[in-house]
Amino acid sequence: MAPPSHSASHLTNASAPNNCFTVDTPRCLLDPDEFRRQGHQIIDFMAGYYAHIEDYSVSPKVTPGFLRSRLPAAAPSQPEPDALAAALSDVRDLILPGITHWQSPRHFAHFPASSSAVGALGEALAAGLNVVPFTWTASPAATELEMVVVDWLGKALHLPETFLFVGGGGGTFLGTSCEAILCTLVAARDRKLAEVGEGRIGDLVVYCSDQTHFAFHKAAHIAGIRKANCRVVPTRREEDPFAPSPAALRAAMQADADAGRVPLFLCATVGTTATAAVDPVAELCAAAAPHGVWVHVDAAYAGAAFICPEFRHLAEGTGAADSVSSNPHKWLMANNDCCALWLKRPSALVAALGTDRDDVILRDAAADGDGDGAVDYKDWSVTLTRRFRALKVWLVLRCYGVEALRGAVRAHVRMAALLEEMVRADARFEVAAPRRFALVCFRLRSPDKLGGEKAAANELNRRLLEAVNATRRGPYMSSATVGGEYLLRCAVGSTLTEERHVREAWKVVQHHSAALLREMHGTTTPQSVTI
Amino acid sequence: MAPPSHSASHLTNASAPNNCFTVDTPRCLLDPDEFRRQGHQIIDFMAGYYAHIEDYSVSPKVTPGFLRSRLPAAAPSQPEPDALAAALSDVRDLILPGITHWQSPRHFAHFPASSSAVGALGEALAAGLNVVPFTWTASPAATELEMVVVDWLGKALHLPETFLFVGGGGGTFLGTSCEAILCTLVAARDRKLAEVGEGRIGDLVVYCSDQTHFAFHKAAHIAGIRKANCRVVPTRREEDPFAPSPAALRAAMQADADAGRVPLFLCATVGTTATAAVDPVAELCAAAAPHGVWVHVDAAYAGAAFICPEFRHLAEGTGAADSVSSNPHKWLMANNDCCALWLKRPSALVAALGTDRDDVILRDAAADGDGDGAVDYKDWSVTLTRRFRALKVWLVLRCYGVEALRGAVRAHVRMAALLEEMVRADARFEVAAPRRFALVCFRLRSPDKLGGEKAAANELNRRLLEAVNATRRGPYMSSATVGGEYLLRCAVGSTLTEERHVREAWKVVQHHSAALLREMHGTTTPQSVTI
Repeated sequence: MAPPSHSASHLTNASAPNNCFTVDTPRCLLDPDEFRRQGHQIIDFMAGYYAHIEDYSVSPKVTPGFLRSRLPAAAPSQPEPDALAAALSDVRDLILPGITHWQSPRHFAHFPASSSAVGALGEALAAGLNVVPFTWTASPAATELEMVVVDWLGKALHLPETFLFVGGGGGTFLGTSCEAILCTLVAARDRKLAEVGEGRIGDLVVYCSDQTHFAFHKAAHIAGIRKANCRVVPTRREEDPFAPSPAALRAAMQADADAGRVPLFLCATVGTTATAAVDPVAELCAAAAPHGVWVHVDAAYAGAAFICPEFRHLAEGTGAADSVSSNPHKWLMANNDCCALWLKRPSALVAALGTDRDDVILRDAAADGDGDGAVDYKDWSVTLTRRFRALKVWLVLRCYGVEALRGAVRAHVRMAALLEEMVRADARFEVAAPRRFALVCFRLRSPDKLGGEKAAANELNRRLLEAVNATRRGPYMSSATVGGEYLLRCAVGSTLTEERHVREAWKVVQHHSAALLREMHGTTTPQSVTI
Repeated sequence: MAPPSHSASHLTNASAPNNCFTVDTPRCLLDPDEFRRQGHQIIDFMAGYYAHIEDYSVSPKVTPGFLRSRLPAAAPSQPEPDALAAALSDVRDLILPGITHWQSPRHFAHFPASSSAVGALGEALAAGLNVVPFTWTASPAATELEMVVVDWLGKALHLPETFLFVGGGGGTFLGTSCEAILCTLVAARDRKLAEVGEGRIGDLVVYCSDQTHFAFHKAAHIAGIRKANCRVVPTRREEDPFAPSPAALRAAMQADADAGRVPLFLCATVGTTATAAVDPVAELCAAAAPHGVWVHVDAAYAGAAFICPEFRHLAEGTGAADSVSSNPHKWLMANNDCCALWLKRPSALVAALGTDRDDVILRDAAADGDGDGAVDYKDWSVTLTRRFRALKVWLVLRCYGVEALRGAVRAHVRMAALLEEMVRADARFEVAAPRRFALVCFRLRSPDKLGGEKAAANELNRRLLEAVNATRRGPYMSSATVGGEYLLRCAVGSTLTEERHVREAWKVVQHHSAALLREMHGTTTPQSVTI
């Protein structure tokens, strides 16, 4: 797999070797001048990467083992001369041709992992300070900035004030939604077990829809909920597409209660993984309320859109829930990883995840943070060691401002709407689920020849995606199977994506569709595609 | 709280304003030229910080609320002119004076969070690429580099080959030890429940010592283990100091088995949090074996020392365990966060944390990775979204080489041995636990006047630490209470620490001790200290 041809010139940096490593002190490993020299190398390398990112195939054409076979079996004992430059050459020649380029403007798969200059540089700054803000004392400004910024973000996203510190709730920045779901589930579990007795963990029941991300099943499993006690409410394409019915949820909870089981937790979703469907959160909360069920709203992707007044009602709809999470690393320019979690009653989280052991090293630190509402964030998460994620979110909000982030969301939504129009204008295709936010789900209609046979139509669309993703300079999309139907997903949201990339992507899809349909009708063999 | 006086000059950068944010495309948020300009600003800022880090008080003299009260209540709608420069001014004036400076050469608290130039820059590079390697397909080179580097690291640390991919085991990079413990515990739990029946989760028993980090209790709690079923084996100062006795463990497990409970998991520690004590891992494994108990070795801090042949026997001693974890972000220059987890049978982890749901978006990605032993790391952790941590560890190993990392560990161990000597040479003090690795635990001996009263001696030492940490340019240490005795902990390990910093730290301790002892004997009031 050869790298793009001109990468040799744009990604190399000659520089002087660093020979400090034989010195008797570790200090040379963090020498300010050397840091500056090497730092500029890294920055220039990255700037060159962004400038030429369109030259890469978004999804690499490699097979398992391709990299392992080209690297030494052990770390070097001594570094080679000018090791960083040599390493960057390897990044250029071995790694970049082998990664999936999530920052490519032609990356439309999964959901975006949006990057911005200050988002990435905020990560760099946090890495350089390298503080570990597990308690207030362990780095006061890091804790306080987190408290401030999680409120800033909640306000910008129009969340009900009860989820913010200023409204008596509070939030934190974790790594991922998986952690947010696990932490809130454990908090809910402990609260419920305190009520019904610790021995009844086997009776606890959790609820979701058939569109809920598997992270929820994983979290429930980790927390000791029986697999048999995970109720999956089915969804349908008709009526409220791919959203669970509050009546069905109500019935499921009542059936469990009647059978002596204990309804515990509902994971509702705003912006599901497959189709970005929106659960009717307020109605689901009403159904859950009689059973004292904790409702968490997973808005990992779509929460970013709450920043626009036109999506504000979705944020407001979470008002009856217990907790909400969203990932600024997905569509809010804050770079991987970052999940904001807000709760109305953080005390339930601290009761489940906190520690009051005073025989350990953290005693003095934890004790100091109590006055004036400062928090010890170690008690809000699975982990003790934490990253200083608030720094990059603060930089993104401060350096770009809320209006620019709104503008970015709207630009992507507009591009997705354009794609939707193009899909509708081509009779061979159908929009396979209502477009939500900036995700378009589409498929080739089942051709008459297939007689409406679902499996064959699915296979046709599967081959279409395969062909599209195999196009060397083409778009990279993903798929989902919903209600038995295989569909292609085009999630617009990479920072670098412009309208022309969406138009080009659609042309590639059309081109391969034509070839596939021709092949199916036996008129010709599929062409080798060179777009 | 005023920042150090000359920070105003070394941390500011004038630069041109960026006015792209009103443009109708998000692309300008990741413009290569703007990234380069802003990136160099950040690098210069960091280099300036390292050059002047000794001017900061390691632990800030601030009170809760100090920062929140100085920041606006909401994010700006529009950015101010040259927002990054303004933000960096705030970092300089508001944040740096309020963080605990973990990279200061006078930071001796907790355990180190060691940073290096390429460790920090590796984080920056990963943030810039911003890939999400949850499956092999989602970023093949990131997955493969992780497989290669976790083996490199395991070899460098002299781990038994059975923990490496090349030996039939395998590893991954998580964020923290908390995750490593939780993941292995869930794997063990599922394996055991498959044997004894899912309904018996309430009978599972886990084991540790009274020195085990509370992360283990937290993980057990999250995984649904009853608090009453966490056995804490006591340790003593005498004989094998602060390590649990294999005989006591054996007895505890037998008692549980006799009572119809199910021994499940032992968390052994090499390098405990309080005193860096070393559990007799091989003997504990032998005690656990008859009950089919999963043994995890937490070497979060001390695992770094395994890189030296003189500590190799500790690595080899893990041979009978099921899993081992260590944090390269602690003492191996790999920046927060990074925890390496190795297992002999990763399949148990994948069985517990993997997903085989094929109705969701990941189906195609997950399925492709199977040939040739490629792995989907989403099945090795709590989270789906993951960081590309292997990149920085690879850079650290490659750019510095194993010998330099050995040299760093040895330099810190030498400095700690020097401190230990100085403690021993002063009759007022005692070494409160045997020095292990680069951690020195010491305390003022109970003066005759206190008549050996433990509480009073503890209070004296508590006041000593308070005085030491209040010294504006002094060292920052932490404490632990072990066997009822309060002791001061001095963990040498910051990258920038040199012998002179250790000598100075000891002088500050001696100075404040003299003042406290004078005060206790009523000869004078404590002096205001201006060191």
